[in-house]
Amino acid sequence: MNDQAVSGIAYDTVRPIEWIDGQLRLIDQRRLPGELSYLSLDNIPDSAQAITDMVVRGAPAIGITAAYAVVLGVKQHHSADPANWRKTIEPELELLIKARPTAVNLQWAVTQMRALIEKTADADPTAAMLAGARRIHATDIAANHTMGRLGAELLGRDCQVITHCNAGALATGGYGTALGVIRAAYERNQIRHIYADETRPWLQGARLTAWELMQEGIPVEIIADGAAAYLMQGGKIDWAIVGSDRIAANGDVANKIGTYSLALAARHHGVKFMVVAPTSTVDLATPSGAEIPIETRSETEVLNFAGQRTAPDAAHACNPAFDITSAELIDVIITEKGVVKAPDREKLAAMMAA
Amino acid sequence: MNDQAVSGIAYDTVRPIEWIDGQLRLIDQRRLPGELSYLSLDNIPDSAQAITDMVVRGAPAIGITAAYAVVLGVKQHHSADPANWRKTIEPELELLIKARPTAVNLQWAVTQMRALIEKTADADPTAAMLAGARRIHATDIAANHTMGRLGAELLGRDCQVITHCNAGALATGGYGTALGVIRAAYERNQIRHIYADETRPWLQGARLTAWELMQEGIPVEIIADGAAAYLMQGGKIDWAIVGSDRIAANGDVANKIGTYSLALAARHHGVKFMVVAPTSTVDLATPSGAEIPIETRSETEVLNFAGQRTAPDAAHACNPAFDITSAELIDVIITEKGVVKAPDREKLAAMMAA
Repeated sequence: MNDQAVSGIAYDTVRPIEWIDGQLRLIDQRRLPGELSYLSLDNIPDSAQAITDMVVRGAPAIGITAAYAVVLGVKQHHSADPANWRKTIEPELELLIKARPTAVNLQWAVTQMRALIEKTADADPTAAMLAGARRIHATDIAANHTMGRLGAELLGRDCQVITHCNAGALATGGYGTALGVIRAAYERNQIRHIYADETRPWLQGARLTAWELMQEGIPVEIIADGAAAYLMQGGKIDWAIVGSDRIAANGDVANKIGTYSLALAARHHGVKFMVVAPTSTVDLATPSGAEIPIETRSETEVLNFAGQRTAPDAAHACNPAFDITSAELIDVIITEKGVVKAPDREKLAAMMAA
Repeated sequence: MNDQAVSGIAYDTVRPIEWIDGQLRLIDQRRLPGELSYLSLDNIPDSAQAITDMVVRGAPAIGITAAYAVVLGVKQHHSADPANWRKTIEPELELLIKARPTAVNLQWAVTQMRALIEKTADADPTAAMLAGARRIHATDIAANHTMGRLGAELLGRDCQVITHCNAGALATGGYGTALGVIRAAYERNQIRHIYADETRPWLQGARLTAWELMQEGIPVEIIADGAAAYLMQGGKIDWAIVGSDRIAANGDVANKIGTYSLALAARHHGVKFMVVAPTSTVDLATPSGAEIPIETRSETEVLNFAGQRTAPDAAHACNPAFDITSAELIDVIITEKGVVKAPDREKLAAMMAA
């Protein structure tokens, strides 16, 4: 039996999100790369907490997790109160949407699943809901492959790429957005070298991106975030390729803190800047980046490291988890629907309507 | 007895470098802020190793350490071979100069001390050499106070400042360069808030700058290096103030990796960029930043943290320790000799000749 037959999901590499025996199983990304361990969940509140705590992270992965979490909630509430489950589940859906504020994929997925709740039959809604979650999951992986191909077609040969955070299989249903492009380009023999920003404070680059790329033998070096501009100055980088947590209607992009700094350096050095994200990340209801809510996370992420205090005991930190890169700094946005060069409101709307 | 009477050195705050009972005592900066411990040295090779290993770091502090190390060497070699000590010490002076490549203060200080070796009397050179090292040390502290005043005069009121790495008392003879300006401005009630880049990989900002500023109650928040541009975008920063490891003849500035990225973001947002360094950091013999040697340090600084592996086991890192900020991005360079706005070759030469 192949992967598809077992789970209905065509995983390429790692399996960050799986539905196993009626439970949602997540790789605990907080423990990578030292330990590959899993967390199994059977209800919405625990799933929401796992999202908040970054057991799973990455906008598409959060959306898919939320979709499966809704299945868990439907199963539980339908079983407890078959007549009123659509009502009793509602507060938990609201809780789920609030698990993290910046990635729009979370509310997008819950909205999709809520629509399914409306139209599913009362008798046994769980199977229909699960099919819906799997559809979201499989669609995301397919989108990543499409984006990978579209992105790779834009890269030259012998390409030196930098990426920030982790927009890979671990951040999506599988394959990855930015890392999907890098994977596709590597398969086509277009990659000379990859630099991975370590991505403080959570070290998604050092921990997750390096781990993913190394599994496939893609040559990667980790750098301190502050070294990216220096490498660009030395002609070591041709493309910066990142994912996104939300793309506003005008093409402004929310992504992991440090992305904006990278984009400024890229523009200064003539390094091309590519954003890769599925259409579930595009939020036409948000006019521009200024309206995207930016999550502030605990200062201990900056002050502590691996449970050990690194800053002085009484020190404080400011820890915005995301930043906004304005559309003017972006050379190309890639979704599964196509390639938008020099993105603006009109082009983005046209792409979404296509 | 006051500090001056005890040591000949007017420490303001911490005592990163002290001459005690014929030995050189350094705060072990690798262990701050968790532990305030000291390393005592009695010869040049151990002192050179301490510089290489970053027991002491910061361009002026490295220079002063080297000056005292030469005293230790003179004492040892003169005692061992009173007739030939000027010759036998030579290889150790060369070793000392090579302890770290980027900060020019190291070779500057050894050159100063070598000149003193030439002219000191043969009978008991140690006292004369020690007086010379103390002069270098005291001169550095005095320069910092002068620069602090000159820099503070340029800042407005209610100022929001970001600094990178540690250019404080710990990086100098005392008081600091960039932090000297911040200290002086704080005394004059000009500071609203300080952001300290944590400064990966060595965390000089989180560990040392935060520690120094907190000792004096100066309000500081630590941020991930990647967050600086985002804060600038939000209007949270008026000035970026940094030190330097070497200033080339054309005004290009070598400083801790990440400085260049900060300067690019500052320029994009109209945030003023100030470099504060004594004239011992100015290297008119190096035409531009392109000729400044950039130290590459061990990849374990990026891959490990507090002795714990954070990246995958087989991962690699690229770890340049410094970068070059071109003069065009710098609004003002401050030395103890004066203020150079929009620095270039002519202005810098004129300032040095003054």
